[in-house]
Amino acid sequence: MDYIGLKEYLRAERLCVDKALDQAVTLIESELEPDIASAIRHGVMSGGKRLRPILCSTAYRECGGQAENNAYDLAASLEMIHAYSLMHDDLPCMDDAELRRGQPTTHSVFGEDVTMRAAAALIPAAARQALSSARNLECGALGATEVVQELLEAAGAGGMVGGQWLDLLGEGQTLNPKELDELHRKKTGALLTASLVMGALSAAVDKETVSALASYGRSVGLAFQITDDVLDATQSADLLGKNPSDVDLDKSTYVGLHGLDQAKEHARERIVEALSALESIPIDAPILSILARYVVERER
Amino acid sequence: MDYIGLKEYLRAERLCVDKALDQAVTLIESELEPDIASAIRHGVMSGGKRLRPILCSTAYRECGGQAENNAYDLAASLEMIHAYSLMHDDLPCMDDAELRRGQPTTHSVFGEDVTMRAAAALIPAAARQALSSARNLECGALGATEVVQELLEAAGAGGMVGGQWLDLLGEGQTLNPKELDELHRKKTGALLTASLVMGALSAAVDKETVSALASYGRSVGLAFQITDDVLDATQSADLLGKNPSDVDLDKSTYVGLHGLDQAKEHARERIVEALSALESIPIDAPILSILARYVVERER
Repeated sequence: MDYIGLKEYLRAERLCVDKALDQAVTLIESELEPDIASAIRHGVMSGGKRLRPILCSTAYRECGGQAENNAYDLAASLEMIHAYSLMHDDLPCMDDAELRRGQPTTHSVFGEDVTMRAAAALIPAAARQALSSARNLECGALGATEVVQELLEAAGAGGMVGGQWLDLLGEGQTLNPKELDELHRKKTGALLTASLVMGALSAAVDKETVSALASYGRSVGLAFQITDDVLDATQSADLLGKNPSDVDLDKSTYVGLHGLDQAKEHARERIVEALSALESIPIDAPILSILARYVVERER
Repeated sequence: MDYIGLKEYLRAERLCVDKALDQAVTLIESELEPDIASAIRHGVMSGGKRLRPILCSTAYRECGGQAENNAYDLAASLEMIHAYSLMHDDLPCMDDAELRRGQPTTHSVFGEDVTMRAAAALIPAAARQALSSARNLECGALGATEVVQELLEAAGAGGMVGGQWLDLLGEGQTLNPKELDELHRKKTGALLTASLVMGALSAAVDKETVSALASYGRSVGLAFQITDDVLDATQSADLLGKNPSDVDLDKSTYVGLHGLDQAKEHARERIVEALSALESIPIDAPILSILARYVVERER
């Protein structure tokens, strides 16, 4: 597959993920009052690359998983957790952001109280979604508990929440390279890594393969974040659709810490690591290989 | 068992629950930075009746469950979800409360941003806690997925989050009796009912027993809420340790809607229902019987 093929692949995957997400949101809506349901739909369905679910469904298939459609349902759970974290990040007491992906953030449309409730409702909904979809995959009902455990760890204190917290603490002060890596390992890395591990676990592969994909995920996660910093520094806010940027918020970035060229080099090294993790296992993963390179070469 | 015996029982159960909660919080602390970890400890460990976990561990034992200590670990997961909901409820954009159980609320000590993160971290932590403890009970690893599913449903859109939302909508306007029941069925009732269902499921009893305990839970849950309203109307805020009260917030209450005597009568009727649900099943549940009566006769 070349880059043009990859773009087509990502587009097709996004459509399948969006369909699964739409079904998941429709189920939540059936249990809720219209206002808060609309906030959930706005937070989950307003675009995005769907990178985490696509990593999950791709890992699942390249690990030999056969039940494609149920895998998209599992993959959707990752985006629901991601959406909750973005809704939280944008709140007035956090980054106070008005725009996300070029659209008004959830709280600027629905208010702070509704957004907080909606974001919190997404966490148990995502866990339920993961549990009920994984049991229909190769891992079976027992393996599904491991799959959901991965999601819970990544969404919790040791993962995303800890990372968001380091992020807030770091505003207005310069982190050292080790602290910045730690922040992003938790904030973005934990859920990205979980995406791959959940895909692999649900296809019921051996432990070595799961841990190689976890290592791929950690490297790709860091490369992804460094590339975000590079894009923030080199592209206009209009193109990225974000407001305010991390530079406005006076956060430590890889570009600020290492300079543009060294940051790019740092990202490329992570991709070399990711590819070597893939080569260490007996599965053939051509799409994960090309996806790793795409993560640092994307334009937004 | 008489009331004096019950008080002793509740005290002893509270100690066991608090020990399990302390261990759960210590695990979360090991994964987190000190500030946010302190907020979690404050939110979870600052007192409370521990009614939900005690209903869970009691149901588990009266259903024949033998692994008492692991049952307290499972029971702790319910209090973690309850604590998250109280931390959210007290926030400035919600009830804006300064005191809870006579102590400063979490956000008035640690700030809004930390409290939001801490509350959100409790949701995946509680699900993880339920999953890992239930698998060591009679239900086994497969049954544990059903147990955690109950917790997720109760904590999610169809349960607590939907109820909190109805609660906010209802401020400043008079709900009709049906709407008020619906609000409390979700807001308090869902998690109380889940406490009993989780206890029963983890002891691996038959479906009829599970559904009778669910029905007991729904009735006790409503009786509990009506009694809260009665206490709010008849006791001083100092004694209850709450500020502001639901009356200050201009929320619909059972006393406001039905008057004091009829509200009390309404609560007693729910207890009659709860006891008749218990009588419909072949298990002997003396403590659940006396607990049902305690719920309406308590003084705070």
